Amino acid sequence: MSNKEKTILSGMRPTGKLHLGHLIGVLDNWSQLQKDYNCVFEVADWHALTTKYDQTENIQQHIREMVADWISAGIDPEESIIFVQSDIPEIAELNLLLSMIVSVGRLERNPTYKEQIEELGENDAIPFGLLEYPVLQATDILFPKADVVPVGEDQLPHIEITREIARRFNHLYEDVFPEPEPKLAEVPRLPGLDGRKMSKSYGNAIYLADDEEEIQNKVNQMVTDPDRIRLSDPGNPEVCSVFDFHKIFNNEERVEKIAADCRSAELGCVDCKQELAEVLVAQTADIRAKREELLADPAQLDKILEEGAQQARKIASQTLAEVKNAMNMR
Amino acid sequence: MSNKEKTILSGMRPTGKLHLGHLIGVLDNWSQLQKDYNCVFEVADWHALTTKYDQTENIQQHIREMVADWISAGIDPEESIIFVQSDIPEIAELNLLLSMIVSVGRLERNPTYKEQIEELGENDAIPFGLLEYPVLQATDILFPKADVVPVGEDQLPHIEITREIARRFNHLYEDVFPEPEPKLAEVPRLPGLDGRKMSKSYGNAIYLADDEEEIQNKVNQMVTDPDRIRLSDPGNPEVCSVFDFHKIFNNEERVEKIAADCRSAELGCVDCKQELAEVLVAQTADIRAKREELLADPAQLDKILEEGAQQARKIASQTLAEVKNAMNMR
Repeated sequence: MSNKEKTILSGMRPTGKLHLGHLIGVLDNWSQLQKDYNCVFEVADWHALTTKYDQTENIQQHIREMVADWISAGIDPEESIIFVQSDIPEIAELNLLLSMIVSVGRLERNPTYKEQIEELGENDAIPFGLLEYPVLQATDILFPKADVVPVGEDQLPHIEITREIARRFNHLYEDVFPEPEPKLAEVPRLPGLDGRKMSKSYGNAIYLADDEEEIQNKVNQMVTDPDRIRLSDPGNPEVCSVFDFHKIFNNEERVEKIAADCRSAELGCVDCKQELAEVLVAQTADIRAKREELLADPAQLDKILEEGAQQARKIASQTLAEVKNAMNMR
Repeated sequence: MSNKEKTILSGMRPTGKLHLGHLIGVLDNWSQLQKDYNCVFEVADWHALTTKYDQTENIQQHIREMVADWISAGIDPEESIIFVQSDIPEIAELNLLLSMIVSVGRLERNPTYKEQIEELGENDAIPFGLLEYPVLQATDILFPKADVVPVGEDQLPHIEITREIARRFNHLYEDVFPEPEPKLAEVPRLPGLDGRKMSKSYGNAIYLADDEEEIQNKVNQMVTDPDRIRLSDPGNPEVCSVFDFHKIFNNEERVEKIAADCRSAELGCVDCKQELAEVLVAQTADIRAKREELLADPAQLDKILEEGAQQARKIASQTLAEVKNAMNMR
């Protein structure tokens, strides 16, 4: 089976506009995979409810912003299927059917769930959707019969549950599902402005939506080598967030030169940041333009999601029919 | 609000052909309610999976037999909506949405679940569907905005969970659901052939499908007063299963006379059983005839369920739209 015959399923919760961490950690990877695989990308809005059921005011806006970011960053709706989970009612049906063949104990052993229990304390504070989460995720992966799922380390246990559900279904009824393989991606470290992991909730992110001025301002706030106090002090690029960014976004030659000039104090932080801001602005210019164009024309975005939903529903209906038939359901 | 404006939701798992216990305990009650309320009766085939996911070979036959029994016993598809749960995909969607606002702890405290845990031992043997069961039942009740749910004592905790989910939804989002009231039915005791509760699993049931000969044979096996050994011994109708049946199926005058003649040993068990068999045959004659007619014409049954599904889907779509709108979902 060539890769182009293999299906990849991946997705994100609709958290709104994405930042450079998403670009480097996920979207660039998706863009690559898109060339080699049959890709299905899901806006997991039902998943968002598993923890944020009481914060849905802006979820539709978040969906639009996020999909605009996906497409602007290179996810091509002509190449890949882009759809919103809740546009596919067959996923809810399939989820209900698959939930019957999983045990409570298996889901309680899910490491993510155990972490949440520790954090939330008692069971009365734990939404049932959180326990159910891996079944819904398994459904997302199994409805298009995905062969490969790009994941981070922390998601491996969920892929394992998905594989178990697939095996169990095939064993109990009929051979319907392939067992999906996880595909671990090597992701370079991209810190936020404060040096911690870039995250919306830390308020330390540079967004794909940020304009030149915002990028400039944010880069100016970035944490550099704390031991370099005066311009004439030699710096250590290894402990500098600005340099982490140069490594990812600047060209190799410049990266080497910047490191050398920092260590010899020939390059000061202000100039170094100025260069980074310019590089970032240039590297994200196309994304920003495309993003603005998409968000200015909501009908176009709606049409993309509608067409994606049509394609996803066709696949989901087919799988659901096979599942019902195997289970002797109507 | 007059009762005719009130909606009742009730249902059964598709366990196949029904027995006299169902007739007395449920169907006669439904027939009465149907005159006074707007009734919705559900074949709960998804619920059947919560415990019997691996025994679905005959589920479609079970659905047909059960619905034939319902209609034969007086449930009128012109008066009431009769539908199969899994024909309504909106229920799966609504179930998924409502599952987000329930806590794990609340479901773990459900007494039925606690009993099952004790029986099944460890969590790995407990299907997740079993923990989820009250949410699915709440969805069944809430999708038609049922005002009243006829239940037995053991179902009261599930109605309480349903009321909590309705309250919580209305509080979190918008006022969409009425809080359904349970309606406890007084059900006369109908023992099986061996004196235990009549149940398919005990093999002690008289079915609505049983013909005259089967009824006669089964009545002959029934347990009577164990202390009445000879015909000339006086009997005690209070400890006689046959007499329990007479009380329910025979006319009042005959019941009194039978009790007196049993106590005075004027009536022997053989004659008493003969009379009961005749009464049962007569009382179930119309049901038997209607049942045969229905099962001989599967297209008619299919049409009834199709029309029921259409009506139920219309209601479910409307409720789902209100729910999504309240939650800001698509």
